[in-house]
Amino acid sequence: MKLKIIVPITSDEFNEEVKREIKHYVDPDDYVDVENLDYGPASIECEYDEAMAVPDILNKVKKAQEEGFEGIVIDCFGDPGVHAARELVDIPVCGGFEPPMQIVLGLGQNIGVITVLPNVVPMLHDLVAKMGIEKRVKSIRYVNIPVLDLGDKQKLEDALFKESLEAIQKENVHVIVLGCTGMMGVARNLMNRLKEKGYDVPVIDPAFAAVRMVKTYVRMGLKHSRLTYMIPPVKLYTWWEK
Amino acid sequence: MKLKIIVPITSDEFNEEVKREIKHYVDPDDYVDVENLDYGPASIECEYDEAMAVPDILNKVKKAQEEGFEGIVIDCFGDPGVHAARELVDIPVCGGFEPPMQIVLGLGQNIGVITVLPNVVPMLHDLVAKMGIEKRVKSIRYVNIPVLDLGDKQKLEDALFKESLEAIQKENVHVIVLGCTGMMGVARNLMNRLKEKGYDVPVIDPAFAAVRMVKTYVRMGLKHSRLTYMIPPVKLYTWWEK
Amino acid sequence: MKLKIIVPITSDEFNEEVKREIKHYVDPDDYVDVENLDYGPASIECEYDEAMAVPDILNKVKKAQEEGFEGIVIDCFGDPGVHAARELVDIPVCGGFEPPMQIVLGLGQNIGVITVLPNVVPMLHDLVAKMGIEKRVKSIRYVNIPVLDLGDKQKLEDALFKESLEAIQKENVHVIVLGCTGMMGVARNLMNRLKEKGYDVPVIDPAFAAVRMVKTYVRMGLKHSRLTYMIPPVKLYTWWEK
Amino acid sequence: MKLKIIVPITSDEFNEEVKREIKHYVDPDDYVDVENLDYGPASIECEYDEAMAVPDILNKVKKAQEEGFEGIVIDCFGDPGVHAARELVDIPVCGGFEPPMQIVLGLGQNIGVITVLPNVVPMLHDLVAKMGIEKRVKSIRYVNIPVLDLGDKQKLEDALFKESLEAIQKENVHVIVLGCTGMMGVARNLMNRLKEKGYDVPVIDPAFAAVRMVKTYVRMGLKHSRLTYMIPPVKLYTWWEK
Amino acid sequence: MKLKIIVPITSDEFNEEVKREIKHYVDPDDYVDVENLDYGPASIECEYDEAMAVPDILNKVKKAQEEGFEGIVIDCFGDPGVHAARELVDIPVCGGFEPPMQIVLGLGQNIGVITVLPNVVPMLHDLVAKMGIEKRVKSIRYVNIPVLDLGDKQKLEDALFKESLEAIQKENVHVIVLGCTGMMGVARNLMNRLKEKGYDVPVIDPAFAAVRMVKTYVRMGLKHSRLTYMIPPVKLYTWWEK
Amino acid sequence: MKLKIIVPITSDEFNEEVKREIKHYVDPDDYVDVENLDYGPASIECEYDEAMAVPDILNKVKKAQEEGFEGIVIDCFGDPGVHAARELVDIPVCGGFEPPMQIVLGLGQNIGVITVLPNVVPMLHDLVAKMGIEKRVKSIRYVNIPVLDLGDKQKLEDALFKESLEAIQKENVHVIVLGCTGMMGVARNLMNRLKEKGYDVPVIDPAFAAVRMVKTYVRMGLKHSRLTYMIPPVKLYTWWEK
Repeated sequence: MKLKIIVPITSDEFNEEVKREIKHYVDPDDYVDVENLDYGPASIECEYDEAMAVPDILNKVKKAQEEGFEGIVIDCFGDPGVHAARELVDIPVCGGFEPPMQIVLGLGQNIGVITVLPNVVPMLHDLVAKMGIEKRVKSIRYVNIPVLDLGDKQKLEDALFKESLEAIQKENVHVIVLGCTGMMGVARNLMNRLKEKGYDVPVIDPAFAAVRMVKTYVRMGLKHSRLTYMIPPVKLYTWWEK
Repeated sequence: MKLKIIVPITSDEFNEEVKREIKHYVDPDDYVDVENLDYGPASIECEYDEAMAVPDILNKVKKAQEEGFEGIVIDCFGDPGVHAARELVDIPVCGGFEPPMQIVLGLGQNIGVITVLPNVVPMLHDLVAKMGIEKRVKSIRYVNIPVLDLGDKQKLEDALFKESLEAIQKENVHVIVLGCTGMMGVARNLMNRLKEKGYDVPVIDPAFAAVRMVKTYVRMGLKHSRLTYMIPPVKLYTWWEK
Repeated sequence: MKLKIIVPITSDEFNEEVKREIKHYVDPDDYVDVENLDYGPASIECEYDEAMAVPDILNKVKKAQEEGFEGIVIDCFGDPGVHAARELVDIPVCGGFEPPMQIVLGLGQNIGVITVLPNVVPMLHDLVAKMGIEKRVKSIRYVNIPVLDLGDKQKLEDALFKESLEAIQKENVHVIVLGCTGMMGVARNLMNRLKEKGYDVPVIDPAFAAVRMVKTYVRMGLKHSRLTYMIPPVKLYTWWEK
Repeated sequence: MKLKIIVPITSDEFNEEVKREIKHYVDPDDYVDVENLDYGPASIECEYDEAMAVPDILNKVKKAQEEGFEGIVIDCFGDPGVHAARELVDIPVCGGFEPPMQIVLGLGQNIGVITVLPNVVPMLHDLVAKMGIEKRVKSIRYVNIPVLDLGDKQKLEDALFKESLEAIQKENVHVIVLGCTGMMGVARNLMNRLKEKGYDVPVIDPAFAAVRMVKTYVRMGLKHSRLTYMIPPVKLYTWWEK
Repeated sequence: MKLKIIVPITSDEFNEEVKREIKHYVDPDDYVDVENLDYGPASIECEYDEAMAVPDILNKVKKAQEEGFEGIVIDCFGDPGVHAARELVDIPVCGGFEPPMQIVLGLGQNIGVITVLPNVVPMLHDLVAKMGIEKRVKSIRYVNIPVLDLGDKQKLEDALFKESLEAIQKENVHVIVLGCTGMMGVARNLMNRLKEKGYDVPVIDPAFAAVRMVKTYVRMGLKHSRLTYMIPPVKLYTWWEK
Repeated sequence: MKLKIIVPITSDEFNEEVKREIKHYVDPDDYVDVENLDYGPASIECEYDEAMAVPDILNKVKKAQEEGFEGIVIDCFGDPGVHAARELVDIPVCGGFEPPMQIVLGLGQNIGVITVLPNVVPMLHDLVAKMGIEKRVKSIRYVNIPVLDLGDKQKLEDALFKESLEAIQKENVHVIVLGCTGMMGVARNLMNRLKEKGYDVPVIDPAFAAVRMVKTYVRMGLKHSRLTYMIPPVKLYTWWEK
């Protein structure tokens, strides 16, 4: 299976780690290409950043289909440009939000999300409302660490552990979704630490979930409905010099 | 009051009509400036179009605040870029969706929206879900006329009349919201034709509603909450040649 | 514009203050008449009080239309008699609840209301449910000050400040609606004190909102739907000696 | 058990029939008193009528407690004054809406209500929203017969049969609630006619349900919570000459 | 009236107490038969226990109809087998969950449930969701006492009192439902202790509620809808040696 | 990966077909075992059937874990015993309902389910409510073919095509979920026929979805939360002779 992973930021800070991690998510005969944006924000931490990332994401999405990729992951928990991307192409496209939420719906009753900064919490509530699963999501918390500082894994894991405990103990959360695709490589440790504390709960890595979900769509021969994601009417677009 | 109206498309087809109509929406001592996009789609008829419109909308929004405007209307029913715009500036910003929906909540129990094309219906359902008013919106219909063909007022009005009747008679709708800011100058006629038919129901023009709502915010000394619309973290943005 | 403000209590304690405040809400060429009830409760602090206020409110509503008023505000946060009033007349009628809730829907995601006494909290939850916006209202609190003691502005403002802070910090509220139309003249100070504390959030004065919303309806040529608020069937009414 | 039935209209048209019917609802050792209003509307067919009925209902409610009644039924499907009545007294009070809806929740998944006139449909939707059972109520229809014409039982039953069939066949309704307490003596026939047609569904008579529910409260030693229905604060009430 | 009470466990620990208590729930001319399971779990404290109880419950249900009983109570708060039982018979069947929830909907706005163990809390949330009353249920707590230890009434009552206070004070609960039919004989004491503490709130005993609700159905001549609870298609069942 | 498929009926009619189909769902190195029930109903077509199937399902579930299987599919759209099974074991367990619903949430806005008989429709509505996705499911229809007659593939496909068209055209459905795991081998044909008709929408085969979802859990190292699905308390169970 030939998969394209779009890391929708101009910073290349995560590239090597993403490539390394992705290997654990895919199967031996998968071909995976990881690509950054040429135009857009260094990281996505608010709706303004997301808006500035989307045009080049959509360029990359169109190109991926032309180049014969069978599925696309837009590797960001805010699902930037996912709806528009599905309008543009006939291959499955997943962002980082929908897939972990889909997967977690079968693992426990009360969902808790832990993201990076307070700035994105209202946007995540909007995504939950659009997905129509408000009744299942009991908590959206944040570790207050900017995206580009997520490299300090110990600090990240400790902060996630603290917030997970609060979510479980104070907000009756039964399952944890990591709320940023930059939170790579910590889910398993976090799950173990929570289990030692007496809480045997799943912790979902959103990038892992996104890759597996897009692979599931390809494997099942499914793509998005053209009644929800209709083909854009033809028209003139004016754009900056390229 | 100094107001900026951003018509978020590159086509200038609507400019004269918007300027003429806006005069009826504002008060004698208001100063209003109407501005098109330099970069983006000719019209907005899907999420892809919207995504391509937002970056230049946000440029115009920032400029409007710098130039001393007191309120901004992004004149499109899809509320493109509204959330991001509110992150960027400290003056009220309204799109074309939220204001008519706010106003209509006080006029009747069951709301019907009539928009242009089927392509935007799922997006409008998402906006309804994000606004949290699903229980009030009973119908989202379309006249199947592209945005740039809305100039044929008689055809538009007849199609809206037909869909309004169906919404009222078959879906128990009590109030009608016109679902495109390009549907200017037909609300009153439509309201009269429905009344003659025995249905004394309000019909809301979204651009009129947007202008009055932004004026209400300015008049009351209110702007959006900085807990919902936080200031974007400072970072590097890479963009096309300008 | 000729507006009638009905203060739906028999006490005249608020009359002078209402008249003074209203001047700030309206425009230079508006004519505003403020009127108390002849029959009913001294103040409205429960559903029994409201029930006893409604018959004379409806008398005043009918008279206002006959006397050529163009819009009516029933100046109480419980919206007493608003539905029945709209059945009776063909001019816009607003209470004190719907308008601030409509306005605040465009200013922030999570709404908090702060009212006078615990007695009215269940009634406010019912109004939220009827309006269909439960998903947006996160907190309904009270300052525990009876309506007729609201004259001590410093005490009121301090109590509102305390409850606002708790609503923001403990219940994740992003916008504050004052939950009694007797809480006049404190919204701006409260907003400033919250901003100094680091919370740049709007605070909505319900009477101000009600006056601006009824003016918006008149300005836009809109009134309530006759499919929601049908004309009462003709019949015999028996009443006490007048 | 000593029960008071308040027929909340000034017309005495239903008195004999109510007294006759009530005998089938109660037990041999119950004492039941049926009482009309002295002041108010001849019938209740809109929110204005309801507003005009409530003050004298509340007089009768207070008197009933003073006279030693153990439970009160306000015999109207709109539950007029029920919330205020519960504030006033310490004995169970039921209207005609809540009890049949409570009972029907245990009999079938999808509830259909059939009332008298279109005027009350929005009010019934509000009652459903306040009760928080929107997910269960799939249909609110009307036979278009004024309350004071309900005496023609054959006409009523035929109209109810027709609407019940439509509710079942077109709106997937599984249980029928008669939406006016004036629809006495037809539930059983209607149930039989539907069963002959192949639909073995319960039909609930609201007055019967109200009497049995208030008796259940008395029998179980229960009354309404004083945290929802608080005692009204003491104050001055001014009223018309009596 | 001839009623069957099925205590859906193989332990006979509760039999005498149930028989004694039931006498207070029924009327002088009622005939009541109490019966245990022959096959199943000693007590029901999770979904596995419930699954193992249901087949013999359904045997007893069928037998009860054959023996001429007019109504059946499956005396467990988890409503085990209630849906299937209604498919099987044409007489009213109530479990321990639906009836107290139906009754409490008319007594206060915010419902709190207090059950035995954390194991059953997710199942109770599912029952609330299936009943469609999520908006009314604000709290589901537990006393952490196994079913077969409920005999220590003082310990039970003290634990219920503590949890009730927390539910009222911290979660704004207005009415209490005891969440296990084994919590017999404590509702009245608990209600008195809460009242002494200043909280005049109803406390509902689920077994009492179940018996009164099934009696109400019989008294009103009602049974469940055959459109929700259809007759099972005929087929072969293979079962263990009997 | 070593997977157990439990076909939760005593009929062996589907065994060969299931084994044949499953091969297309799994990967080359998967080991799959398909097993029928020894005790229970010949097919599952109502809640009674489901109740009678669950005890032996749970036996098979425990045995599968003991025998080293890594994941279990209970191959029925009603998810019989899934909650109880998760209490019993520490390996992922999926029924036929949750997985296709999880998958379809990422493919289109409005979901339609088409099942076998009207008898199971209320149960499916309950499953939707428990899953908390009512807002996404717009239609639950049936082909009116008993489970054991599903072998006539042409009849089944034609009936599914007809119902799919109605769901799309009349109920605005965007994606189709086949509502019985016995509807094997028709999804792709149905999808093609709908596409030829102009509706490019996904059709989900629930057994395929279940197998892929359980494989996803195993692949991601996830199992259900022990806060939702707690370990059953130890106790005595009495059962029929084995």
